[in-house]
Amino acid sequence: MSPLTLLYTPASPFARKVRMAALERRIKLELLDTHVSPILSNPELAKVNPLVKVPVLISPDGPIYDNRVICRYLDRLGEGPSLYASEVAERWSIATLEALSDGVMDAAVLLRYELGVRPEELRWKQWVDIQFSRILGVLEQVEKITDSLVGLHIGSLGLAAALSYLDFRHPALPWRENHPRLSAWLADFEEHEIMKNTRYPQV
Amino acid sequence: MSPLTLLYTPASPFARKVRMAALERRIKLELLDTHVSPILSNPELAKVNPLVKVPVLISPDGPIYDNRVICRYLDRLGEGPSLYASEVAERWSIATLEALSDGVMDAAVLLRYELGVRPEELRWKQWVDIQFSRILGVLEQVEKITDSLVGLHIGSLGLAAALSYLDFRHPALPWRENHPRLSAWLADFEEHEIMKNTRYPQV
Repeated sequence: MSPLTLLYTPASPFARKVRMAALERRIKLELLDTHVSPILSNPELAKVNPLVKVPVLISPDGPIYDNRVICRYLDRLGEGPSLYASEVAERWSIATLEALSDGVMDAAVLLRYELGVRPEELRWKQWVDIQFSRILGVLEQVEKITDSLVGLHIGSLGLAAALSYLDFRHPALPWRENHPRLSAWLADFEEHEIMKNTRYPQV
Repeated sequence: MSPLTLLYTPASPFARKVRMAALERRIKLELLDTHVSPILSNPELAKVNPLVKVPVLISPDGPIYDNRVICRYLDRLGEGPSLYASEVAERWSIATLEALSDGVMDAAVLLRYELGVRPEELRWKQWVDIQFSRILGVLEQVEKITDSLVGLHIGSLGLAAALSYLDFRHPALPWRENHPRLSAWLADFEEHEIMKNTRYPQV
């Protein structure tokens, strides 16, 4: 197999999800650290993905993105059971859990830009508040889920990448208080090697 | 088959893509118009999707989102050839075109919020400029594509929803000037019934 190179940043939750999926599928990725910013260009990255976002997989089939497309690509290449469920009912609950997790990551990254990059005098409190409330709304719903949190699949990988990103970038958000099951779930999940080997950087 | 209800807004490009996919697959959707805003809640919508985004498909398998998951769901239900290619090479070029189109829609919706909803004194010109430049970067790349623009599939549906959304929400963006092939492609694509029957509202 030709080597696969992943353009990523260690702080990207979307890239972490892809790295976890690759480890779980026993696929070796060459990791190439790059940089992304909401206000700067990155000509090297733009050459392969004009959206200038990570992750991007450089593959024999050309540059592949975004995170969801890469995960499906890796799922076809690797070994062992698929990360996508085969049972119809399970398939859609896992796909929708993945969408919820991607949505939490989207909101959390936008909040990071708003609160950490945008000049302070241009921040919009009303928008910030509603984004955090939506993230907590997702956690409230996921707290009640029983079936689709079990096992290693694209939904649980995404959720773990999303929750741990909240801890990394928004440590003041008290999400554990009202979500004891999720909190215990993440603590267990953190013990997997695919989590230990893809940690966000120390801040 | 149980009736399927789509929660949507007429102005959402993501919902338009789903409506186009349903028409192409000959699947009847009940359309339920709702409202979304970056700074307001919508308790009815939040009950089915805590991210408070459209589109959401109310299905016998539960609420299904986001747009990509719904399109895959409809693809399994409907008639005729799949919207997802079967050839390996084609599959990934179409999937990446879908990701580019979703990325253009994401950026264009965020720009709409920044320029149309966020108080004027809180706008961030540097961020606005780079988002528009990324959208144009995508168009520059897609202008060179020859193969994956042919035919009705999830990539071309997404691209048409994205480009027509630029015309709808950002009519001052002179994207046609440097993209004659894309411009001609969209003019042809607009003749499909699936486009005529899903138009954005008049502004």
